[in-house]
Amino acid sequence: MTQSAEVICVGTELLLGEILNSNAQFLAQQLAQLGIPHYYQTVVGDNVQRLQKVLSLACERSRLLIFTGGLGPTPDDLTTETLASFFDVPLQERPEILASLDEKYAHRTQAMAVSNRKQALLPQGAQILPNPVGSAPGMIWSPRQGLTILTFPGVPREMQAMWGETAVPYLKAQGWVTSTLVNRVLRHWGIPESTLAEKVQSFFSLENPTVAPYAGKGEVRLRITASAASTAEAIALIDPVEKQIRAIAGEDCFGTDDDTLASVVGELLRRRGHTLSVAESCTGGGIGHQLTQVSGSSAYFKGGVIAYDNAVKQGLLSVQPETLQQHGAVSAEVAQQMALGVRQQLQTTWGLSVTGIAGPDGGTPDKPVGLVYIGLAGPDTIQAFPHRFSAYRGRDWIRWLSICSALDHLRRRLHQDLANA
Amino acid sequence: MTQSAEVICVGTELLLGEILNSNAQFLAQQLAQLGIPHYYQTVVGDNVQRLQKVLSLACERSRLLIFTGGLGPTPDDLTTETLASFFDVPLQERPEILASLDEKYAHRTQAMAVSNRKQALLPQGAQILPNPVGSAPGMIWSPRQGLTILTFPGVPREMQAMWGETAVPYLKAQGWVTSTLVNRVLRHWGIPESTLAEKVQSFFSLENPTVAPYAGKGEVRLRITASAASTAEAIALIDPVEKQIRAIAGEDCFGTDDDTLASVVGELLRRRGHTLSVAESCTGGGIGHQLTQVSGSSAYFKGGVIAYDNAVKQGLLSVQPETLQQHGAVSAEVAQQMALGVRQQLQTTWGLSVTGIAGPDGGTPDKPVGLVYIGLAGPDTIQAFPHRFSAYRGRDWIRWLSICSALDHLRRRLHQDLANA
Repeated sequence: MTQSAEVICVGTELLLGEILNSNAQFLAQQLAQLGIPHYYQTVVGDNVQRLQKVLSLACERSRLLIFTGGLGPTPDDLTTETLASFFDVPLQERPEILASLDEKYAHRTQAMAVSNRKQALLPQGAQILPNPVGSAPGMIWSPRQGLTILTFPGVPREMQAMWGETAVPYLKAQGWVTSTLVNRVLRHWGIPESTLAEKVQSFFSLENPTVAPYAGKGEVRLRITASAASTAEAIALIDPVEKQIRAIAGEDCFGTDDDTLASVVGELLRRRGHTLSVAESCTGGGIGHQLTQVSGSSAYFKGGVIAYDNAVKQGLLSVQPETLQQHGAVSAEVAQQMALGVRQQLQTTWGLSVTGIAGPDGGTPDKPVGLVYIGLAGPDTIQAFPHRFSAYRGRDWIRWLSICSALDHLRRRLHQDLANA
Repeated sequence: MTQSAEVICVGTELLLGEILNSNAQFLAQQLAQLGIPHYYQTVVGDNVQRLQKVLSLACERSRLLIFTGGLGPTPDDLTTETLASFFDVPLQERPEILASLDEKYAHRTQAMAVSNRKQALLPQGAQILPNPVGSAPGMIWSPRQGLTILTFPGVPREMQAMWGETAVPYLKAQGWVTSTLVNRVLRHWGIPESTLAEKVQSFFSLENPTVAPYAGKGEVRLRITASAASTAEAIALIDPVEKQIRAIAGEDCFGTDDDTLASVVGELLRRRGHTLSVAESCTGGGIGHQLTQVSGSSAYFKGGVIAYDNAVKQGLLSVQPETLQQHGAVSAEVAQQMALGVRQQLQTTWGLSVTGIAGPDGGTPDKPVGLVYIGLAGPDTIQAFPHRFSAYRGRDWIRWLSICSALDHLRRRLHQDLANA
C-alpha cells in the first residue's frame, strides 16, 4: 500500500448524469498541487452495500480516502453512517454541530431542524471538519492506524471552502505534503497549436519544470509546472523557462494565468491613458460584454453601438449608404467606416468594429459563413482585418473567435506602439 | 452479478485534474435514458497494473464495461493491449483500420503513420467500433460469455459520435434496452426554487413520470422524466403533467428544453411583427449578445447602444444631464430615459435598458452593489423595474441576472399583451 490518496464521490445524481463531477476535478488538481499521489477515483450511488464494497477496496489500496457527497439531512445521505458501521464504531451526536445548525436554521421551521439533527452525528473519535458556508459539516477520521478519511458535502462551494480552510492545513501538519507543485499557464492567441508546439518543442522534454500544451476555445496554452520544496523555489524554476518561451512566442503570448484578452487590452489602454469604443454587428454586444467583465473597465471603455441592422450602421455610425450598396455590410470598407464612426461618435482614442456572417444562414459563395471583418480606427490608423473562420463549429464559435480576434488586433497594435515609443 | 453497466475512464490527465470528466456524465445520462442500470464509475491512470486491477473487479460486478481513453497512438495509450493481455487474447492488425488511417493521414508525415499503426491493433474476435470523426477506432468485444466491453477514445466529440452511431444500435440489438426514458425540462424565471417547489410539491411523489426540481444560473428547472416502451408512450405520459404544472406555474414558466429567455422573447416579437433595441450600461452589451445568439434575430433585433459612460447616455440616448445629476446614473429615471432614448434613436417598437452597479467597487450605502434598474419603453409604456441582487456571488453573477431579468420583463409584457389581445 502506497502513501496515496483516493477520491470517492457518492451520489446517485452523478450516476444519472444529472450533475457534472467537478468535485473530482477540483480534488485532483489540489492533490496534484500538494504532491499527493492519487491513482483512483470512484463514483458510487447512495447505496449502503455498494458504498461498503467500494470502501473495503479503497482501504486496501490507499491511505487517504476523500469522500464527497451523502452528508445531508435526507435518508438518502448515508456516507457517515456507512463509514461508522463499516469500521464498527458508534455514532455520537455532537453538541457543537447541533448548536451551529440551530444558529444557521434559526429562521427556519421546526421540521427542518429535526431532519437536520442527523447531520450532528459523527463516529466516535472523528474530528469535525467545519463547513463555513453551508449546513452539513464533514469529518477527519482515522478509524485505524495508517488510514485517514476526510468527508465533504457534495456542494462544490462548500467542499472547496472546507478543503482550503481545514483539510489542507491538516494534511500539511500530518506530513502528507512534502513538495509543492506550482503551475503557470502562458496564454496565446493568433497562432495554431501545432505551430506553437513546433516552435517550443524542445521544452516538452524538460523534467522540472515540465511544459505541456493544451488548446481551449481558440486559444493555445502552455502550462509550466514545477515541483519544489517551497512555492518560492518552484517559481524560481518556472521564471527562466517562461522568459525563454516568451522570447520565442513573441507577441502571440498575450498573458498568463487569469489574464484575458480583455484584461490585457484594458491594462494597455489604461497605461497609455487611452479610451475605447466598439461598433458591433455579428457579435451583437459581445466585445463590450467581454471588456466590461473587467472590474474598473469604465476607466478606458466608454461604450459603443450594436449595429445589427444596416439602418443603425448608417444612422449612428455614419456608414455611407453607397458603401453598403457597393461592398455589402460584410466588407472591409464597412468595417473601417464602423470603427471610424464609433470613434468619432463616442470621442475615444480607438474605435473597434466587427461585421461578419455568423451563420448558419446568410452565407453566399462570395461571402461564406465565417467571413468576418474587424475594423480598427485610431489616432493615425484606419485598418480592416479579414478573417475566414471555419463554419463547421457553428454560430457561437464564430462569434467567440470574432470577439477575441478583435480584441487581439487592438492588443497587438497597442503593444507595438508601446514598443516603438 | 446484475445486468448492469460500469464506466471506466482511463487517463492520467483526469487524475491530475487537467480535464473535467464530461465523458462520465455523458455516458451516465445516456445509460439512464436507455434504462441500463449503472452503479459504478472509475477513473484510473495510464498504468497497466492499476488498469488490470480495476478491470478484474469490474468483470465481477458488471456485465457491460464501457471504457473511455487510452486508444491513441502514443506509448501512454494502453487500454486495448491491457484488455487483450488480461483476457489472454492476441492482438491482430486490422487492415480495414489501417486503410482508414492511411486515408485520414494521407497528408501527414510518414513518422505519424508509423505510430498510428498501433491503433490498427485489436484483440482477436473483437469487432471494430468505427470512429467517424477522428483517428482512433474503438471496439465491441465479448471476451467471455455474458461480458461485453466497449472502448472509446477520450475525445468527447469522437466518443459521442461513436456512441450514437454504433454503440446505441448495438445495445438495442442485443436486448440491453428494454424501455425508453424521455426527459422534458420546464424552465422558469423570476420565482425562487423553494416557492416553486412548494407550489408543485404534490408532483414530486409521482412515479412515472417523475418530477424533480433543480436550479441553474438563477433559473429554476423542473425535469419531468417518463419511462415507457416507446418514445411516443413516454411523451404521452409527460404531456398531461406538463400541462398541469404550467397551469400552476403560470407566467413564471418561460419554456422547455432548449428554449432560452432570448429565444422566447424573439419568438414573441416575431409573432407580433415588433422590433427591439437595447441600451446597456452595467451589462456592457450582454443583452444584445444573448439576443443575437439566436439565429435569425435580425428579423426583430435592430441593435442598441452600450452606454457605459454617462457622456454616451447623454449623447446617444438623450438622457438629461439634470436627471443624471439629480438621481444618479443608477436610478429608475435614468433607466426609463435610456429605454425611451434607444427606442426613439433606433425607431423600434420596444426599447429595453439596464443601469446598475455590478461591483465589486462603486457601491454606496444608498446604492449598494447589486442594485440594478431595468427600463422598458414601448408603444404605450414607460416603466422601470428595480432589482437588488445579492452581491456576494460577484460581478459576473449580477450581470447575468441583470441580462436575464431584462429579457424576462419584456417577455412578461409581450405575453400579457398577447393574452389581452
